[in-house]
Amino acid sequence: MLFQDTIVALATPAGVGAIGVIRLSGPNAIPLVNSVFKPKDLSKQSSHTLHYGRIEDAGRVYDEVVVSLYIAPKSYTKEDVVEISCHGSPFIQESIIQLFVEKGARLAKAGEFTQRAFMHGAFDLAQAEAVADVIAADSAAAQAAALHQLRGGFSNELAALREQLIHFASLIELELDFGEEDVEFADRKDLEDLVNQLLVAIRPLVASFRAGNAIKNGVATVIVGKPNAGKSTLLNALLNEDRAIVSDIAGTTRDSLEDTWVLGGIKFRLIDTAGLRETEDVIEAMGVERTQAWVKKAQVVIYLADAVTETPDGYVEAITSLGEIDIPVIKLLNKVDQVNDSQVAAFKSIIPELIEISAKNRMGLADLEKALLDIVGLDQVSTGGTLVTNLRHYQHLLQTQETLESVMRGLQVGLTGDLIAQDLRYALHDLGEITGQISNDDLLKNIFGKFCIGK
Amino acid sequence: MLFQDTIVALATPAGVGAIGVIRLSGPNAIPLVNSVFKPKDLSKQSSHTLHYGRIEDAGRVYDEVVVSLYIAPKSYTKEDVVEISCHGSPFIQESIIQLFVEKGARLAKAGEFTQRAFMHGAFDLAQAEAVADVIAADSAAAQAAALHQLRGGFSNELAALREQLIHFASLIELELDFGEEDVEFADRKDLEDLVNQLLVAIRPLVASFRAGNAIKNGVATVIVGKPNAGKSTLLNALLNEDRAIVSDIAGTTRDSLEDTWVLGGIKFRLIDTAGLRETEDVIEAMGVERTQAWVKKAQVVIYLADAVTETPDGYVEAITSLGEIDIPVIKLLNKVDQVNDSQVAAFKSIIPELIEISAKNRMGLADLEKALLDIVGLDQVSTGGTLVTNLRHYQHLLQTQETLESVMRGLQVGLTGDLIAQDLRYALHDLGEITGQISNDDLLKNIFGKFCIGK
Repeated sequence: MLFQDTIVALATPAGVGAIGVIRLSGPNAIPLVNSVFKPKDLSKQSSHTLHYGRIEDAGRVYDEVVVSLYIAPKSYTKEDVVEISCHGSPFIQESIIQLFVEKGARLAKAGEFTQRAFMHGAFDLAQAEAVADVIAADSAAAQAAALHQLRGGFSNELAALREQLIHFASLIELELDFGEEDVEFADRKDLEDLVNQLLVAIRPLVASFRAGNAIKNGVATVIVGKPNAGKSTLLNALLNEDRAIVSDIAGTTRDSLEDTWVLGGIKFRLIDTAGLRETEDVIEAMGVERTQAWVKKAQVVIYLADAVTETPDGYVEAITSLGEIDIPVIKLLNKVDQVNDSQVAAFKSIIPELIEISAKNRMGLADLEKALLDIVGLDQVSTGGTLVTNLRHYQHLLQTQETLESVMRGLQVGLTGDLIAQDLRYALHDLGEITGQISNDDLLKNIFGKFCIGK
Repeated sequence: MLFQDTIVALATPAGVGAIGVIRLSGPNAIPLVNSVFKPKDLSKQSSHTLHYGRIEDAGRVYDEVVVSLYIAPKSYTKEDVVEISCHGSPFIQESIIQLFVEKGARLAKAGEFTQRAFMHGAFDLAQAEAVADVIAADSAAAQAAALHQLRGGFSNELAALREQLIHFASLIELELDFGEEDVEFADRKDLEDLVNQLLVAIRPLVASFRAGNAIKNGVATVIVGKPNAGKSTLLNALLNEDRAIVSDIAGTTRDSLEDTWVLGGIKFRLIDTAGLRETEDVIEAMGVERTQAWVKKAQVVIYLADAVTETPDGYVEAITSLGEIDIPVIKLLNKVDQVNDSQVAAFKSIIPELIEISAKNRMGLADLEKALLDIVGLDQVSTGGTLVTNLRHYQHLLQTQETLESVMRGLQVGLTGDLIAQDLRYALHDLGEITGQISNDDLLKNIFGKFCIGK
């Protein structure tokens, strides 16, 4: 038993609803609830059973409830867990939680239930982090990636890599023990092959972060262009195209500053040009500076020009005025249905990658969508379903990749075993930090502190 | 089986949380969930059991969940009920609900689960209405009143009254059948005694509505007075006195327009004088008209005068300027610690009911609190724990009381049986409407339509 105290928290969102669920976990969870539960004796019941009754203490009836019983280790935290399904009244929930605190439970910190599950070995750290991602997921692709990670897909992959690396490292360390004798237990050619194999496995994982991150956090996309180029029309055309998440549950899609648009299961956050829409003027009235500020917030820029009133030279000039940016710019020519072929050709001769559209007539939108999806690069991911979506994991994987590349160079120039061994220790450490085989209090605090209370 | 269709809804508040609960009820609830649940066969499980698994359909994993099984009639609705505890992600919840709708479930209307429970006789209409009150309760007294009603306290009382009335009515109706023969099966003296007993039971219920309503909805209280009379000081003194609901769950106490103050388990909604605080001027700058508008919104007025700068005549004048109001006015004299006894006596000789306070020094606040609680009149309620909190119930009870009083007058003047019988039918109807023994679709629609979805 790692923990002596019993924690309690509201597990459902705060607010008024039909029901709310209060969760307790710890050695005292069942006796605590039993002491205020009528009429059954919960201590005599089996795991995974439901019990109707009332919470009552000192003559006060708190609520009529249904209690769910999970007896250790058959629970989320691997401790005794009791969930109390009460009426969805904040007042009642608060009163009941208060009652348990008076009886000796402690208010759970953010993520503490999941942290206990992790500490008890219910899953590794990457899986624990996936719990938060599953909750935060707001598109099919994000949810699938998070669930894949939660169910151990990513962890299994890392565990296999780490095992190979440990084998490698142990041979090298063995050499160090016999340092004086100049033996080579680890055949350098075999080791080179192994590092190569590891790099072949890690590089796609590192590369998958671009798609993984886009899937998890959405792709901040800003549409810029001169007044009357048709930005609002394009925005509306895109938003009307596929309102994948049309929700009757409040709060799923809208953000005050952004329009969310789901394409191919991936969320594009179209940075709200409401302000821009009013003035209808980005490059001129708001100035180059302000446009550049918009672009800085984005991961993709869509530049839109009006084929009727603008010129090829003006197009190039406008793109140049965006400044030096290292994010993709999708270049669109709008209103192509209102000009003739030679006018379009004049643009394309200077900007060959131009995509021709008519936002008004919804022409060319498929090409634009393809360009956006290409940028996310989901179809270029070659990790068999595993996507790195977590910045922390990405950083450790990138570090591992760089360390292994350094090992590779070391092997090629015949570096001594002790230097190679040091690099290997770094790589093992980085991989171990992802799954939590190596962890420290600060790291755990940081990870679980971002969870919601009650999880 | 009253209902052929299976309904589904989110039962927990919308939003991100640790978990969310999706509820299904109806003949197809278990087969529906079973068709997308892996790995167990839910159709082979007992009632009141919990099952860990995943929701999966057409190759897509929706979530890892825990399923609660309630087999008819051992459930809230008396139908088969399945509750799915999934991750607290709006996207996942919505996806799963959508999946069940595709598989043939129907989105539940507001209150439809409770309506089904009522239709299947799980409880009467007054109890069903109490479910909504329990959820809305935001003070200990309101919660206790609602739970008492939910647990049938009120219903039992009404059932007993109605039974007596039915006995009375049947005797009278019997007389009508023998109309030509001029018999009296119902002894007029006995009947008078019975009606008297009924009135003795109903009058306190009717009278309890003042306290019941105050408990359920809070008491709108406005503090008025001249500039610098000390309104803000008094408000702060009251609010700091007893912040009974200090919540770490958002949304329990604050309202944008009001300060909530719980005294003796009863919520006083101190109508926010923020605007007033700025100008510090009610009677003069804002004008009598505006003060009267404030007073119109209130159920209690606290009038506050400054003993140092104001005069007894000025006090009377100010009270008069409030206009004709039929709500209680608590009259306070502030800053009594800064004047001598004869000055206070001068006020009291004209306004004997004056309560002397010093808001700054928290003197006399207990007297003010007692005056406020007296107005609610909870201690004058003589119904043994039953409080009428619902306007609909109050109206039917008041109607019953008036009808019975008319019966009483009829008996005293020797009215004929047929007229008395008609009044009795009205009274029976009114009592029956409270408990739902007499109901119609519009009434039910109205009542359950005010519930939240998922309840």
